[in-house]
Amino acid sequence: MLRLGPLVAAGRLLAGPRCSGTRGSVCRAGPGPLGERGLPSQGLVLKTPKGTRDHPPAHMVLRDRLLAAVVTCFKRHGAAAIDTPVLELRETLVGKYGEEAKLIYELQDQGGELLALRYDLTVPFARYLAMNKITNMKRYHIAKVYRRDNPATTRGRYREFYQCDFDIAGQFDPMIPDAECLKIVHEILSDLQLGDFLIKVNDRRILNGVVAVCGIPESKFISTCSTIDKLDKMPWKEVRSEMVGEKGLSPEAADRIGEYVQLNGGLDLVERLLQDPKLSQNKLAKEGLGDMKLLFEYLTLFGIARKISFDLSLARGLDYYTGVIFEAVLLQQENDHMEEPVSVGSVAGGGRYDELVGMFDPKGRKVPCVGVSIGIERIFSILEQKVKASGEKIRTTETQVLVATPHKHLLAARLKLISELWDAGIKAEMLYRKDPKLLKQLQYCEDTGIPLAAIVGEQELTDGVVKLRDVATREEVDIPREKLVDEIRRRLEP
Amino acid sequence: MLRLGPLVAAGRLLAGPRCSGTRGSVCRAGPGPLGERGLPSQGLVLKTPKGTRDHPPAHMVLRDRLLAAVVTCFKRHGAAAIDTPVLELRETLVGKYGEEAKLIYELQDQGGELLALRYDLTVPFARYLAMNKITNMKRYHIAKVYRRDNPATTRGRYREFYQCDFDIAGQFDPMIPDAECLKIVHEILSDLQLGDFLIKVNDRRILNGVVAVCGIPESKFISTCSTIDKLDKMPWKEVRSEMVGEKGLSPEAADRIGEYVQLNGGLDLVERLLQDPKLSQNKLAKEGLGDMKLLFEYLTLFGIARKISFDLSLARGLDYYTGVIFEAVLLQQENDHMEEPVSVGSVAGGGRYDELVGMFDPKGRKVPCVGVSIGIERIFSILEQKVKASGEKIRTTETQVLVATPHKHLLAARLKLISELWDAGIKAEMLYRKDPKLLKQLQYCEDTGIPLAAIVGEQELTDGVVKLRDVATREEVDIPREKLVDEIRRRLEP
Repeated sequence: MLRLGPLVAAGRLLAGPRCSGTRGSVCRAGPGPLGERGLPSQGLVLKTPKGTRDHPPAHMVLRDRLLAAVVTCFKRHGAAAIDTPVLELRETLVGKYGEEAKLIYELQDQGGELLALRYDLTVPFARYLAMNKITNMKRYHIAKVYRRDNPATTRGRYREFYQCDFDIAGQFDPMIPDAECLKIVHEILSDLQLGDFLIKVNDRRILNGVVAVCGIPESKFISTCSTIDKLDKMPWKEVRSEMVGEKGLSPEAADRIGEYVQLNGGLDLVERLLQDPKLSQNKLAKEGLGDMKLLFEYLTLFGIARKISFDLSLARGLDYYTGVIFEAVLLQQENDHMEEPVSVGSVAGGGRYDELVGMFDPKGRKVPCVGVSIGIERIFSILEQKVKASGEKIRTTETQVLVATPHKHLLAARLKLISELWDAGIKAEMLYRKDPKLLKQLQYCEDTGIPLAAIVGEQELTDGVVKLRDVATREEVDIPREKLVDEIRRRLEP
Repeated sequence: MLRLGPLVAAGRLLAGPRCSGTRGSVCRAGPGPLGERGLPSQGLVLKTPKGTRDHPPAHMVLRDRLLAAVVTCFKRHGAAAIDTPVLELRETLVGKYGEEAKLIYELQDQGGELLALRYDLTVPFARYLAMNKITNMKRYHIAKVYRRDNPATTRGRYREFYQCDFDIAGQFDPMIPDAECLKIVHEILSDLQLGDFLIKVNDRRILNGVVAVCGIPESKFISTCSTIDKLDKMPWKEVRSEMVGEKGLSPEAADRIGEYVQLNGGLDLVERLLQDPKLSQNKLAKEGLGDMKLLFEYLTLFGIARKISFDLSLARGLDYYTGVIFEAVLLQQENDHMEEPVSVGSVAGGGRYDELVGMFDPKGRKVPCVGVSIGIERIFSILEQKVKASGEKIRTTETQVLVATPHKHLLAARLKLISELWDAGIKAEMLYRKDPKLLKQLQYCEDTGIPLAAIVGEQELTDGVVKLRDVATREEVDIPREKLVDEIRRRLEP
């Protein structure tokens, strides 16, 4: 990171005492003598906060493409957009996230309300529904959320990141909206051509039943789940030892759980568990399994069942889920020999949360909800890698024409012409020089990918024409000035 | 974990952002038993933080239209997009905003860095340029910024609000980029058809010269400017008394200033001041007036000079401006008899800041910049008012077809058909019910503006067709299933 040396300019700043109103030493023009003597530098640290980053233009172009694909899918499914503030009252967020709540960013009490930065888009959505007494809504929300997590920026994990959420709120017949959420994940991952993927599903009620029939007290349900959830990264042996050691389960109980949570499959597994002598006696598990069967039926009608795996080890971290939960993972191809393979983990996740809105409603009235969040940052990392590998050169601007002049004293001509083009809706640039060399102007076109140059010299002004140059082929044609806009449009038609 | 009291106020309110921006008790979940006894309510406060608001779908549609118009203009001028974090190191922001710095939101020190929410997009842009050693860039940035201001939400003034900035960084020939910024303001305000407007321009160097030739010490420049800036809201008499009273200027100095700052006009005024015996002797003022003359020359070539007013009372609040400054205001039509006239103030502003990047560069290297910020929130308030007045019904979704069934036991048929439509890129919805009544399905189309219904009953399934219904005309035609997608596309062609 950069440290600022003596801030010489400060003394000469026209607008005056810019350090006025600041506290202490920030406008200190360090390092100065102190820094030079090797003492801790007093200089300004030139960086973004830990776990955050700037997005330069090439990122933004790729990101806009990606978000456009996601929004297109959300709109295809009839969702409306909403936005909520980045700031929420702290009490709105408290008690919704379980252990993860410690990662919430809090603001200083500045003589007003106690505020925090939103941790996800789900709790603000529930707050929005309760506050506006909305009992029925299909919405999407694409916005930044904040978590004081340990950033793993190479894996696309940041402290400030976008979430892309689609949720269906309302009292409906079972599993129809849930199935649509999975269909959406399937559509987005297919559209983006990220390679093969798998969507794991489970149900909190089934997990609850498993934990119960294995003789584990209800009070240990959440903490047992968070250990189960590690099965995708750790072998059973280690998970078992965490259950027995840290979580205080008996070895027998742990073994009984192990028999269940290592299972995964399709509809056949659902059927088998519905026949399981212990599990089928548990009310919640039976409900969950019945709904899982229905879900597979709907997913088969959607033609996507073969990408779905009923996986009893899937637990998900957040407290608020009450029914179906799911998570999509990309499958690493064995024959993939990328130089820097990106390890990405899950790229989408979600589930049913039927109690969250009721936590905000003064009378506890529930609005059942199910939703999905697309892990846009991880997908972005992969896309970035792919673009890099493909050698595709991304244009960061959309300029169609550079307005150029071949010799001196023609600034007025350029300003007049470019103004005509802008007014006609043509994307046009010129160099901000009185008398730029023609070569420099053409070089700018090549550097930035501008396909056309509109050149006016004395001769063209006299003749009432503009020389239109195709930057790639270097062909030049004189076009009557009044026909220039149409000609540019014609040339750039897709 | 939550203590919710009855939310009395909420019960009477619909989807509006009714709790946003209110202070105190409006959405407080009282009184409840405690509240009734007059004790402080223990209930959850169901609201967004002071000065912030949710954006419901109808807002979002309008906002997206507005932002699309602004982005189109920025791209027409060749700008690339960037994004920076909402969070910045506190030291990045400190010392850049003068008196206004007290409005910066600060985060709690949570064992890491000292952070704040960005106050504008200009300082992060300067930090970005310096950090990446960029000396030449034309960029736009549309994002939320945060100010702990006193919200005036009816006038479109919030604590969380969007800024839409376009800036040109680099060492160029004078006033060419500056003129383009004014052209952009002119284009956007014309495109949006907000009524007549005026763009005031001035130059910090001219102001500096005025203050100097009136015999006011350099140390009082900033505070004098902030008083001058009030001339658009207060008569000269009051401004003068603030100068003499609060700011400690001599009555004579104040009167001398008064003679200058009440002037406004066009190129003629520039010429006159260039002949002013005192001002023409001041180096900075002379430079500023020379550039102002050039600016008017370029604006005339752009054909927009008649909307520009050289106004010596324009000072602008921020510390970092060093040259040209400008501000666009809408002109209230005398014959405008709106029921609730929106008072909006300035809708765009900006200027030149040649020293800001140097404040971040370790060697103080300068990158001259000029930029413009579009006051999107204020414009949004006006557009909202206009839409309301016009009675336009805004659709918040884009769904093209509702997949419906005329009788029971056809959920599978609906799921299969809607899946085919989604896969073909058609925007389709269905009701999340096993057996919804046809009337209810058609009612949903009318309520949400869906133009077509695709109906499948037993007969249609047998015949291999789908009944396509035009919701407005109620006409129904059987379409062979394999031709349905094409027919829908044909019908919805713009």
